[in-house]
Amino acid sequence: MELINGIIKNPNVEPEDIINYIGKRITVHGSIYKIRKMSGFAFVLLRTKRTVIQCIYSEEFSNFKLDMLKEESCVILTADVIKEERSRTGWELRMIDVEIISEPVAESPIVINNKEVNTSLENLLDYRPITLRNQKERAIFKLQEGICNGFRKFLLEQKFTEIHSPKIVFAGAEGGANIFHLNYFNKDAYLTQSPQFYKQMMVGVFERVFEIGPVFRAEKHDTSRHLNEYTSVDFEMGYIESFKDIMQMETMMLKHTLAELKENYSYELELLNVKLPDITAIPSIRFKEAKELISREYKREIRDFDDFEPEEEKLLYEIIKKETGSEFVFVTHYPSKKRPFYTMDDKTNPDETLSFDLLFRGLEITTGGQRIHDYNEQIQKMRQRNMNIVLFESYLMIHKYGMPPHGGLGMGLERFTSKLLNQDNVRFSTLFPRDINRLTP
Amino acid sequence: MELINGIIKNPNVEPEDIINYIGKRITVHGSIYKIRKMSGFAFVLLRTKRTVIQCIYSEEFSNFKLDMLKEESCVILTADVIKEERSRTGWELRMIDVEIISEPVAESPIVINNKEVNTSLENLLDYRPITLRNQKERAIFKLQEGICNGFRKFLLEQKFTEIHSPKIVFAGAEGGANIFHLNYFNKDAYLTQSPQFYKQMMVGVFERVFEIGPVFRAEKHDTSRHLNEYTSVDFEMGYIESFKDIMQMETMMLKHTLAELKENYSYELELLNVKLPDITAIPSIRFKEAKELISREYKREIRDFDDFEPEEEKLLYEIIKKETGSEFVFVTHYPSKKRPFYTMDDKTNPDETLSFDLLFRGLEITTGGQRIHDYNEQIQKMRQRNMNIVLFESYLMIHKYGMPPHGGLGMGLERFTSKLLNQDNVRFSTLFPRDINRLTP
Repeated sequence: MELINGIIKNPNVEPEDIINYIGKRITVHGSIYKIRKMSGFAFVLLRTKRTVIQCIYSEEFSNFKLDMLKEESCVILTADVIKEERSRTGWELRMIDVEIISEPVAESPIVINNKEVNTSLENLLDYRPITLRNQKERAIFKLQEGICNGFRKFLLEQKFTEIHSPKIVFAGAEGGANIFHLNYFNKDAYLTQSPQFYKQMMVGVFERVFEIGPVFRAEKHDTSRHLNEYTSVDFEMGYIESFKDIMQMETMMLKHTLAELKENYSYELELLNVKLPDITAIPSIRFKEAKELISREYKREIRDFDDFEPEEEKLLYEIIKKETGSEFVFVTHYPSKKRPFYTMDDKTNPDETLSFDLLFRGLEITTGGQRIHDYNEQIQKMRQRNMNIVLFESYLMIHKYGMPPHGGLGMGLERFTSKLLNQDNVRFSTLFPRDINRLTP
Repeated sequence: MELINGIIKNPNVEPEDIINYIGKRITVHGSIYKIRKMSGFAFVLLRTKRTVIQCIYSEEFSNFKLDMLKEESCVILTADVIKEERSRTGWELRMIDVEIISEPVAESPIVINNKEVNTSLENLLDYRPITLRNQKERAIFKLQEGICNGFRKFLLEQKFTEIHSPKIVFAGAEGGANIFHLNYFNKDAYLTQSPQFYKQMMVGVFERVFEIGPVFRAEKHDTSRHLNEYTSVDFEMGYIESFKDIMQMETMMLKHTLAELKENYSYELELLNVKLPDITAIPSIRFKEAKELISREYKREIRDFDDFEPEEEKLLYEIIKKETGSEFVFVTHYPSKKRPFYTMDDKTNPDETLSFDLLFRGLEITTGGQRIHDYNEQIQKMRQRNMNIVLFESYLMIHKYGMPPHGGLGMGLERFTSKLLNQDNVRFSTLFPRDINRLTP
C-alpha cells in the first residue's frame, strides 16, 4: 500500500517567480504560442497559465534546432534568466534546452496567436476550444473569474451564505412561455429560470443568501444581448427597510468588485485595455420619469408606457452620462403589471412596484426589488392574477410560517462582463454560448 | 434624481458584536425561535443569521406582554446587555422592548425548534423551507458553504482558474442511458452529466481549471447515495507527470478544506458534533489488490471482477481503517472497460487505467485520473469502442491542435458533506434533493 501525503512537487519554476532566479538556470513549462524568426535568432513566446513569456532562441547558446519547435507544442524549457533592464519584466530568458512533451498533429485552421483573433463571431465560437487560447480571448474569462471572486468576497464579508439550489424544478412555478421542458421520469419538469423561490426560502433560514449559478431561458430572441443559458449572480436579504437597501448593497458590491479587479487582475485589465467605470454614487430615477426624460430630450414619442425599448436604455445612458458622469443608472418603480407576482407593490401607488433595474452603459444587467413577505398580501396578488395557488404550496410555506421583509436581485454575469469590456455582443463574454442556433461546442 | 452611494446602514447590532456592548442598550433583529416559560420569567431564543441567542423576558424589566411574541415572528428587539460570567457568551440579554415586523399566519405543522427535527426523511424534505430553520439542519448547509470555500481558496492559491461551463449540451457526447433529454428549439439536447469535456478544453487555455456546479444523472437508482442532480466539484490540471499528481492535489485540497472548517466554521462543527477525520496521508491500493484483500479478509467470493459492490466499499473501509487508521482510501487502476473512453490506459497493462476513486468512510466520493492527450491514441480508443468520431469533433480539437498531459477529478459535494457528518443518506446534505420520486420543493 502506497501513501499519498499531499505533497505536490513542481520541478518547474512558476512564471511569476522567474524574477527571483536572475543569473540562474531554470526549467519552466508551457505551450509554444508563437515563433518569430529574426536574422540570426528568434523570439519564442511561451504561453503559461496566465502570461505569455518572451524567450530568446539563438544557435549561440541554444542546444537544439529551432525547427524542433512547433506552435502549440507543450514543452519543458531549460533557460538562463538574464538581467535585462530594457525588458518590462526586468529579465529575459535564453533558451538552452527543450523537452517536447506533446505535439499537435495539425496546424490550427484559425490563427490564434496574433493580438486579436481576426475572424467572424461564428468562427470564433465554432473553434472556441482553440480560439480561447488567444491571449486576449482567455483574459476575458480570467477577468470574469475576478468578477465572481469580487462578488463572493464581498457577500461573504457581509455575512451572506452561499447556497446551491436545484436547476430541475417543478413545472408551473414561475410560468411564462420561456421555459425549457424536460421529461423527468415521466413527470413534467423544467429548467429553472432563476433561483428566486429558493433564495427567498433560504432568507427564512440564513437571512442573507447568494448563489452564482446557471439559469435557463427558452427565449427565441436572437440578439446581441440574449443567451439561452447564462450565469446568474443572485442575492437575497432579509430585514430590509426599503428596496433601496438592495440598491445600496449592489452599489457597494460593485465598488468592491472593481477594487478586486484592480488589485488582483491588473494583468488582464491592461491586456484588454479596460478602463474601469467610476462608481462613487449611482443615480436613481423612476421608470416613469426616465421615460419622460428620454422622450423630452430626444423628442421621441412614448410608444410603450410599461417597458423600455432597447434603444431607450441606450438613450437614457447618454443622458445620465452627460448629466452626472455615471455609466450606471438605477431605474425604479417599474409598472406592477410587468413585474412578477412576488414583487411588492408601492402602497402609495399600487400600479408601481418597489423594484428596480440597474443599467450599465445602456444595458440592463440587474433586476431586483422588494418581495411580498405577508401571506395574505401574496395570496391576494396571486388571486388577482388568476394563478393556481395549489401549485405554489411549498413556496408559500415561507409566507405562511413567517418571513421578514426582504428583497434581492439577479445579475447576468456575462452581460456585466461584456459591458465592462465594451463589447457589442454578450457572446464574447460567454465561455461556450448557448443560443437559439448554437448548442456546440 | 436620487444618488445611491453604497453606504449601508444597519441600525441593529450584529450578534457576534454584542460582546462589545456590555452594560449598554442595543437593538438586534431575528426570528423568535423558541419561547420557554419558567416561573416568573421566560427564556426567548432569537434565531439570527448564524446563531441562536438566548434572551430573558421578565415583567420586572420587559415593557411588553410575553404573549405578544409568537414563534417564527420576525422582530427587532431592544435589550440590555448584562455581563454574566456563567453564560457561555459572557453576557445575557434582557428584553426591554420589541417591535414585531412580521408574523406567521399559522403554526408550523412540524416542530422545528427542538434540538432535532423528529420526523421522517420524507416529511423533513417535504417541509424543507421550514425544517431548514432548525438550528442543526441549517448548520449542515453553512458547513457545506465552508467546504466549498475551502476547496475554492485552495484551488485559487494553486493557480486554478474558475470557469462556468454550459449545462445544456449536445446530445451524444458522453453517452450512456443515464441522461436527461431536452427539447432545445427542436434540436435534441441533454443535461450535462459532468463538465468533463469543457474542463479538458480549458486545460489547453489556462492549464489548471476548476468548477463547482450542478450535474445531472437520470439514474433510476433509488438509494441512500444517489441523487439525480448534485453539485460537482471538478478540477483538471495540465503538465502532470502521473495521475498520482491528481491524487496528491486532492489530498492537499482536503487537508486545506478541513483546516478552513476548523478555522471558520467551528460553531457548526460543535453544534453538529463533527469529529474531523485525520488526513496526514491517504493509503492507496490497486483495484485488483483491494478486491483480493476484501475477499481474503472477509472470506467473500469475488463475483464482479470489474467493479465494487457497495458492500465491498464498506468492507474495504473497515480493513483500511483498522490497518492504517485512515478513513480515506484511494483505489487505483480500475479496469479499462469500466472507465470512459478519455481515460488513459496503463501502458504496462492496457486492461487497467491510470485512474482512481477516493472512498471516504466506505463511500466513493471522487472519480479521477489521467486523460488521453494524444490525438491518435484517443482516436484509436474511440474506434475500438465503435464510437462515432464525428460527434466529438469539437472536443477532439484539443487533441488535434495540441494538449499537455493532463488529468483531473470530480467530487460529489453532497456525498462528501454527508459522510463528513456521518449521515446515512446523502439527502440530509442536499438542500433541495432531486430523486426519482422527488421534484419538490
